[in-house]
Amino acid sequence: MSGSRVLLTGASGLIGSRAIEPLLAAGYQVHALARRTGAAAIAAPAGDSAASAADFAAVTWHEVDLLDERASAAAVREIAAEHLLHLAWCTEHGRFWDAPENLDWVAASLRLLRNFADAGGRRAVLAGTCAEYDWAAAGEACLELERDGRPATPEAPATLYGTCKRATRLVAEAYAREAALSLAWGRVFLLYGPGEDERRLVPGVARALLSSSEAPTSDGAQIRDFMHVDDVAAGFVALLAGSVEGPVNIASGDGVPIADVLALIARAAGHPELLRLGALPRRDGEPDRLVADIARLRHEVGFRPAISLEQGIAGTVESLRAG
Amino acid sequence: MSGSRVLLTGASGLIGSRAIEPLLAAGYQVHALARRTGAAAIAAPAGDSAASAADFAAVTWHEVDLLDERASAAAVREIAAEHLLHLAWCTEHGRFWDAPENLDWVAASLRLLRNFADAGGRRAVLAGTCAEYDWAAAGEACLELERDGRPATPEAPATLYGTCKRATRLVAEAYAREAALSLAWGRVFLLYGPGEDERRLVPGVARALLSSSEAPTSDGAQIRDFMHVDDVAAGFVALLAGSVEGPVNIASGDGVPIADVLALIARAAGHPELLRLGALPRRDGEPDRLVADIARLRHEVGFRPAISLEQGIAGTVESLRAG
Repeated sequence: MSGSRVLLTGASGLIGSRAIEPLLAAGYQVHALARRTGAAAIAAPAGDSAASAADFAAVTWHEVDLLDERASAAAVREIAAEHLLHLAWCTEHGRFWDAPENLDWVAASLRLLRNFADAGGRRAVLAGTCAEYDWAAAGEACLELERDGRPATPEAPATLYGTCKRATRLVAEAYAREAALSLAWGRVFLLYGPGEDERRLVPGVARALLSSSEAPTSDGAQIRDFMHVDDVAAGFVALLAGSVEGPVNIASGDGVPIADVLALIARAAGHPELLRLGALPRRDGEPDRLVADIARLRHEVGFRPAISLEQGIAGTVESLRAG
Repeated sequence: MSGSRVLLTGASGLIGSRAIEPLLAAGYQVHALARRTGAAAIAAPAGDSAASAADFAAVTWHEVDLLDERASAAAVREIAAEHLLHLAWCTEHGRFWDAPENLDWVAASLRLLRNFADAGGRRAVLAGTCAEYDWAAAGEACLELERDGRPATPEAPATLYGTCKRATRLVAEAYAREAALSLAWGRVFLLYGPGEDERRLVPGVARALLSSSEAPTSDGAQIRDFMHVDDVAAGFVALLAGSVEGPVNIASGDGVPIADVLALIARAAGHPELLRLGALPRRDGEPDRLVADIARLRHEVGFRPAISLEQGIAGTVESLRAG
């Protein structure tokens, strides 16, 4: 892969902006697509990132709206990358679960994949989600494919977002077989880290406590699989650089009660006495347990996360205190 | 539904051209979309159709390429139909199973559905296919949904075409729930009738025999579910006019060996001695049996086909003799 050209979409987004550094470190020539490539977008991520300004200057930025059919096709043709890391999607907090824009992203993703293959692309990794699984049948851990006699976790998304991601994968995999394209699909679970929307769990609670306000939360007994965004990004790059095909959970494999994460936030931010566990109801349809089986990621891709939950939460709260 | 406006796509296609008459008979104001609306496209179908020229003059034709995002959106907005019958897709004989254009039709279909709902649409019927089912698990009859304790036939398309149709349905159904749109999905099995591509089974064999040439075929022991295109079109219109939601097989429910159909063709065309059963191999992956369960179509939609296989084949061969 050394010197290979990679097309990165969603490059100014939460995962995409953290993927640039590991892509560069792995020797890729990075062509980053984003709707806006102004100063904010192209600056190296703040906080705990080790990326230098020099690294980021090595990235070629393309200001392209992937929903614009012609502009997108022209950019993909011009870049003619061998690798594709497709992270862009509509992700507006609180809206993306049911937003009709999800349909546009199915269309845009399939078009992107086809244009990429037509331009000589060889290996593609696309971002999927734990919301593709049937949460009611998730059991101990969500398994991507049958393994050692254990059946795969059924797919039955409860949301339009999950359905659109799943449909994109079904078509992308069938198309990849026809087009002799190597394709993997990274399923993200619960990520956190610097740059998250302020309304999400970790920054929302941390901000409240940092400003000495009460932080109302649900009961927190739900078990989740948390992974720091830098590990998620590095996991995607490891997946891209290898040859594993099909769905791969990009997650920690550790089931942790949300209450434990809240306690870590409170310890880092101070004011644990202002945490109000159980003051909010759970969201409709929230599963009790949603944890990834990570045998594929660990043993086939060979990736291990580098950031412990304790370190990750402490760093995230630090960046919020500084920000 | 009386006087309701219907948007018909694929209106110059095999099923679409035969759907116009039953739509008009049911009292719809028909707005027909086709890539080309020249004389050939807008003429009443030849052969056994009872459509009068006056009927066809009542149709409003729109020359629109559904793959053209802007033109398609503008037409759908302008028509502002309450009903949608979406039959357009890439169907070029011999190519459509694996063609990358299938991806474009996923995108175009989802865009169409969204634009239709945004313009006030209430009820949509889209065309699916028996190729969505897992042919290896099809058993006695393909069942759309669990019924009387019998599980639904699994979906596992073997082709890009089947995968793209299936993905479109998954997203369309999830979107319809969000948009409060009533949506049904008609699954077509093996149709035949006037206007078929000459390379397909019935016209191919009939043409050969009509010109006193040999007609080589496979062994013909495969069991299929044949339905005349006029019945398929009428079935779609019945489905549209009702309120049944989800997948509905539009088929006869009768399993017939292909050899029996070949015998009917030979009788109508003459020269049964030129039929060469077994001279060709079967296509890779062809199932032995592919027949629809039609309980939903018969008992929920209340539709029964009007044309027997004997009548239908005889009429089709007659139209080829005349044509």
